[in-house]
Amino acid sequence: MLEFDFINRCFRPLAGDNPFAVGLRDDAAYVPVPLGQELVISTDMLLAGVHFFADDPPRLIAQKALRVNLSDLAAKGATPLGYSLALAVPKNLPENFWPEFCAGLAADQQQFGLSLLGGDTTASPQGLCITVTIYGTIPIARRVLRADAKIGDDVYVTGELGLAALGLYARQNSIEAPEFIDRYHLPQPRMRLIDTLADVGLVHAAMDISDGLLADLGHIVAASSVGAEISLPLIPQSTTTQEFIKKYRLGWVEVLAGGDDYELLFTTPAKARTEVFRLAQTLAITTTRIGVISANTGIIVRDADQNPITISKTGYQHYF
Amino acid sequence: MLEFDFINRCFRPLAGDNPFAVGLRDDAAYVPVPLGQELVISTDMLLAGVHFFADDPPRLIAQKALRVNLSDLAAKGATPLGYSLALAVPKNLPENFWPEFCAGLAADQQQFGLSLLGGDTTASPQGLCITVTIYGTIPIARRVLRADAKIGDDVYVTGELGLAALGLYARQNSIEAPEFIDRYHLPQPRMRLIDTLADVGLVHAAMDISDGLLADLGHIVAASSVGAEISLPLIPQSTTTQEFIKKYRLGWVEVLAGGDDYELLFTTPAKARTEVFRLAQTLAITTTRIGVISANTGIIVRDADQNPITISKTGYQHYF
Repeated sequence: MLEFDFINRCFRPLAGDNPFAVGLRDDAAYVPVPLGQELVISTDMLLAGVHFFADDPPRLIAQKALRVNLSDLAAKGATPLGYSLALAVPKNLPENFWPEFCAGLAADQQQFGLSLLGGDTTASPQGLCITVTIYGTIPIARRVLRADAKIGDDVYVTGELGLAALGLYARQNSIEAPEFIDRYHLPQPRMRLIDTLADVGLVHAAMDISDGLLADLGHIVAASSVGAEISLPLIPQSTTTQEFIKKYRLGWVEVLAGGDDYELLFTTPAKARTEVFRLAQTLAITTTRIGVISANTGIIVRDADQNPITISKTGYQHYF
Repeated sequence: MLEFDFINRCFRPLAGDNPFAVGLRDDAAYVPVPLGQELVISTDMLLAGVHFFADDPPRLIAQKALRVNLSDLAAKGATPLGYSLALAVPKNLPENFWPEFCAGLAADQQQFGLSLLGGDTTASPQGLCITVTIYGTIPIARRVLRADAKIGDDVYVTGELGLAALGLYARQNSIEAPEFIDRYHLPQPRMRLIDTLADVGLVHAAMDISDGLLADLGHIVAASSVGAEISLPLIPQSTTTQEFIKKYRLGWVEVLAGGDDYELLFTTPAKARTEVFRLAQTLAITTTRIGVISANTGIIVRDADQNPITISKTGYQHYF
């Protein structure tokens, strides 16, 4: 298929009649940001063999690429607006690859309320490489940064941590465990929670957990010049997860330092606790208080007896 | 080098103290678009072995990545504001690669007046892949699209076409020809011209030439539902270029259908001709009228005797 047919057939429908995208017929997208709002921009690149397996279902590859970016918008309390998509396309993909890939994008566009604004496609002698740059809006002066955690803040996470890391382990070791593997393939961005908390001034710092709880909490405390103490027994863990970890002799490291969670990590004033839980419940987002922001630097993890424990690995880091 | 050291040392200086970038310390950039303006967004992905040679000077690879995007902003008459940078980083790059790459970005940031707003870095088992998403601003309701060419318009190009294609030929065939090879490595985005013409309402359609004149003029006439007639003898060509083409038995195809020109292609009302040349001269941008927009569809290229000639290849197309 020639480049322009490829764009017309596969991607133009994803731009639809959004005037920002000019039908993907121009060299640019046009985004008039509403008065009183500012644009929030985030970008993530996903590579075959690094962020997904080349033989993963194309629909899930597409959704993961979009959702890891949506998760960044969620953490900043931003309302999704649109995205740009740059693709390095290898030869010899299965015939149904692009229809399924685009079906995945179409489904998530509808679910999360955004559309394709522009992009670039290039034939590549290498593996599939996907760059999504995502755009959202927030009211001006309502930024939620990593750097605003305050001593005494409660520390919260959404959902359950480690599911995707256990899913990757299961995938790599051919263990049938769809409850984990599905989460590795398909992150669940927690939209609306930070947005809702920020609207009523109840959130200090926030980010999404992509490199592991300890690594990402490390970013928040470093950026905020504070420390944190978290309690291992407070970290939510289902019976299914406990059994899986026990069966395969895994440990807390997958939960505290596993990648690909795409849950939210945020801090709020302690006096807001009742309201935080009430708003989270309204949005049906499981939210758990796991610790507190402290005056010391670094992170202390305590066990059920309040003794500090040592975790050998804090999270995933690329090495250059 | 660990990921966060890599970002701190190499890329944070490129964000400087631009408040939009939050020191690259957050998960997002924040762009408050000024009242009365809208954002213009374009994205281009560059791959080693496709858009540049893996052993090209790192400084030039970086500048090419930024400049092909700046060229899109130039064609839309937009003022550069900033860019996001996503990198897939192979192992075993030379030690000086990143300092030189970033020096190239720093030089062009200063020359073109923009800075790094955010990005993503990932270690890659494949070759270097660079995605730049660039942001510029235009006054609202001053969009310059491909689709607005009108019958009777003059058709213009800036600079000289084919230099980069001849440079690629020279590079591939180990011919010493820096005047061409330098242009292949380092596009010269023609900022300010479309901007200036659009401010006084003197431009109809515009785009930058990246796939070859005929292919890109083809996009303009197709999007505008018109045709074009261009005159071969009007297309600017230096004596140096003529001699190179003759020496290596090349043809018009490199000039009309070669990629990587990054010159501007635009149409204006015929009555604006004097003013177009005057404004282009003010900006010191060589601008040549090469033909006219016609009522028929498609493109006719005429020789010195006004006879239509056939060009076998219209431009570079990726095949998927």
